Amino acid sequence: MTNVPITVAHGDGIGPEIMAATLHILKEAGARLDIETIEIGEKVYLSGNTAGIAPESWDSLRRTKVFLKAPITTPQGGGFKSLNVTVRKTLGLYANIRPCVSYHPFIKTKHPVMDVVIVRENEEDTYAGIEHRQTRMVEQCLKLISRPGCEKIVRYAFEYAVRNNRKKVTAFMKDNIMKQTDGLFHAVFDEIAAEYPGIEADHWIVDIGAAKMADTPENFDVIVMQNLYGDILSDVAAQIAGSVGLAGSANIGEHISMFEAIHGSAPRRAGQNMANPSGLFLGAVLMLVHINQPDVAELAHNAWLKTIEDGVHTYDIFKDGVSREKVGTSEFAQAVVDRLGQKPEKLKAVEYKAVEEVAEGDKKPIYSVRSSEKKELVGVDVFIEWWNDKFYGAADDLGPQVEKVNGNGVKLVMISNRGTKVYPKGLPDTFCVDHWRCRFMAEQDGGTVEPQQIIDLLQRFKDAGLDVIKTENLYYFDGKPGFALGQGQ
Amino acid sequence: MTNVPITVAHGDGIGPEIMAATLHILKEAGARLDIETIEIGEKVYLSGNTAGIAPESWDSLRRTKVFLKAPITTPQGGGFKSLNVTVRKTLGLYANIRPCVSYHPFIKTKHPVMDVVIVRENEEDTYAGIEHRQTRMVEQCLKLISRPGCEKIVRYAFEYAVRNNRKKVTAFMKDNIMKQTDGLFHAVFDEIAAEYPGIEADHWIVDIGAAKMADTPENFDVIVMQNLYGDILSDVAAQIAGSVGLAGSANIGEHISMFEAIHGSAPRRAGQNMANPSGLFLGAVLMLVHINQPDVAELAHNAWLKTIEDGVHTYDIFKDGVSREKVGTSEFAQAVVDRLGQKPEKLKAVEYKAVEEVAEGDKKPIYSVRSSEKKELVGVDVFIEWWNDKFYGAADDLGPQVEKVNGNGVKLVMISNRGTKVYPKGLPDTFCVDHWRCRFMAEQDGGTVEPQQIIDLLQRFKDAGLDVIKTENLYYFDGKPGFALGQGQ
Repeated sequence: MTNVPITVAHGDGIGPEIMAATLHILKEAGARLDIETIEIGEKVYLSGNTAGIAPESWDSLRRTKVFLKAPITTPQGGGFKSLNVTVRKTLGLYANIRPCVSYHPFIKTKHPVMDVVIVRENEEDTYAGIEHRQTRMVEQCLKLISRPGCEKIVRYAFEYAVRNNRKKVTAFMKDNIMKQTDGLFHAVFDEIAAEYPGIEADHWIVDIGAAKMADTPENFDVIVMQNLYGDILSDVAAQIAGSVGLAGSANIGEHISMFEAIHGSAPRRAGQNMANPSGLFLGAVLMLVHINQPDVAELAHNAWLKTIEDGVHTYDIFKDGVSREKVGTSEFAQAVVDRLGQKPEKLKAVEYKAVEEVAEGDKKPIYSVRSSEKKELVGVDVFIEWWNDKFYGAADDLGPQVEKVNGNGVKLVMISNRGTKVYPKGLPDTFCVDHWRCRFMAEQDGGTVEPQQIIDLLQRFKDAGLDVIKTENLYYFDGKPGFALGQGQ
Repeated sequence: MTNVPITVAHGDGIGPEIMAATLHILKEAGARLDIETIEIGEKVYLSGNTAGIAPESWDSLRRTKVFLKAPITTPQGGGFKSLNVTVRKTLGLYANIRPCVSYHPFIKTKHPVMDVVIVRENEEDTYAGIEHRQTRMVEQCLKLISRPGCEKIVRYAFEYAVRNNRKKVTAFMKDNIMKQTDGLFHAVFDEIAAEYPGIEADHWIVDIGAAKMADTPENFDVIVMQNLYGDILSDVAAQIAGSVGLAGSANIGEHISMFEAIHGSAPRRAGQNMANPSGLFLGAVLMLVHINQPDVAELAHNAWLKTIEDGVHTYDIFKDGVSREKVGTSEFAQAVVDRLGQKPEKLKAVEYKAVEEVAEGDKKPIYSVRSSEKKELVGVDVFIEWWNDKFYGAADDLGPQVEKVNGNGVKLVMISNRGTKVYPKGLPDTFCVDHWRCRFMAEQDGGTVEPQQIIDLLQRFKDAGLDVIKTENLYYFDGKPGFALGQGQ
């Protein structure tokens, strides 16, 4: 078996020590690696590079496609960009993987039986940072969810389950409210789940699912989520497991992936052989499975579990009455090495499966090609800023003004304020702000609209002195409406 | 002191029994109420009213402005609308209040010390239901956050804290990512917190805050959140408190408010004098405080706590070794009545403050009037659907095509795909879908743009055969940009 090239960065603070400890265990466990080392972090930042990573380092990452990264220190003061955000966005790391495991009774937790892996989408959702202040009162953020984005993350969750010997993948979403965006995620989940009959699939509305996860995490295995839900609930899961300091994570891209500890560089502990290398080590275990060395991952991970259960603990997890021996960073690593070949007795031993290697050119696409659905333009939502000093009942003043721009084959069918229909026939109790959506559709019921009609409509809005702030076209796709009705429409 | 008129609906299933029990306690505790009764729910639905509430019932609600509502049964089958959604949207119930309390050791929980109140915004956020499918690949949902919406909910949280003798209000938000929408919520929180020097105010990024709340809820008091975060985390809080079946909630509007149990109508338990009336009763306690009868609320609530701690329990919370006496619905209510005037010994007794009544006309507005900031149009984001079968690197083909529509004083400054800049000078690793944002600004740096220039630009897009799907205008407000830069811009 040939070695796999990887890129390693030793980082700042406790980074070099915990990386040395981690690499020592990997080497003794027989990991088949060719290591390229790059410099990232504080020194690079302070040399004048605001990204914290030198241009030539990208070449190494693009060559090896695997990045084992120690924590770094971002210098105080302006102008320095988050290295993690830069790497994630630049390399398209679409999946964030975070195993959240409790090690009861060796590490304190309220949830003695917990072994949950959060698979979080990392490129889409409200995290794309597309925000607009639209009126004096209203700010907007776009939540964008794409089919390929959903396909990538859901497929990754199931592939992860297969490789890591997991039994179940659960999806959380809020598709009872967000029927289109979260509905797309749900539909893709159901499609892809059907390709994995050996893995149980289930799903929860995110509020109830989150409540169950926080109360009885022992009922969950792998949970796949969109970006925002995953951000919140991966923190919840890590915290209640009681093992934030021991947690590793993976950031997976289509071509390149990054593995690391969750914790930071802890400069005050640096150079004292005190730090716990477990977070980075468990990140490296994720890496070993990813590069298809499950034998090494299993050997090393089980030795680590035995070490924890033998009470050989670094200062951060040392507890009188539970721990047996307080050790430093390098002694902890050696304790793991000494247990290679052993399995834990009280904690559950891990098992990883080999997956048949597929040549790069033979790999199945992880997302589908674009469908060629027929798209028909049927109308437009024109949003305006308008205000007549009334929080209630103003729509009856506005409606007739907007109706004056009817014509040329399109007509106003509804005005809504933050989603609730207020004209025609609104209710006097609906609180309204200065942000109005005016929905125009073809005069003829069910008719289509030409792009030119929309441009002409916008011209009439302008000529009428109405302050258009944005538009959203309304489409049918293969005859199905691609837009929601207003509440009450 | 005069009586306060309220509207009561007895509901379906166990509703009539638990309402009778609740009203019995209120009466004996000396609640000063004039009750109007309305019919809602199953019978009304099945009489052909798809909203589940008769038109004349709205008159009662608008007259009394206070609604004590038992759970109802929504019939199976299509066409019946959720009564709660209808009432909430119709009456502008902007605040959802949910106290989440543990009653250790009398009710099982992993969190023995927990007394958290979630104050959730209920009208805005991604829950406005404004969704558009924009391309063959991409669905969009709008997250709208308004200044008056933030002001209403944050002020309510602080007013609630004052009335309910609470010490601290915490805000959760994600303004490190959503700098404008969640940033507005944060700014309003800071402004309003300053008006309440007697109440401690703090805030957390929602992921970390959620993790802390799920792990150590004893460190929180009142938590105020936008709609989505509040939806998820109020379920988490209720669940981990162990008291979902005992929880009441309030839905507060500017003019009208509704009080209820969290649980449903449990038809299978109906008519057997079994059901626990505590959820509805605790909803009624929220009502008593709301209508400024804190003396009655305190008397009744403390008697209820004493009943729970005396081990007088209905079947649902009865536990051998903890409970002392298993009772039915009406006996439970009588046990509470028998304890009026007593306080709990192990559980913490409640205290409610009287608040000086302010005549309707003298009330301070709960949101500010609109600011008259200067708004300047400086550009537009034109979104297009475009696809050339390449998930990577396509922007270099698209960019020159879009640049051809430059002219008439505006020019392309950036193209981004789901928020990441891809043109000019994009990176080959950025995964792109068929949804592109083309940002146009004045040719002259820092210049303004006329609405006519945008209309003309859209005309040139159309004439160039580019498929515009939506627009977002770019504004400065009092000289400050109202839009975010693209990642990498």
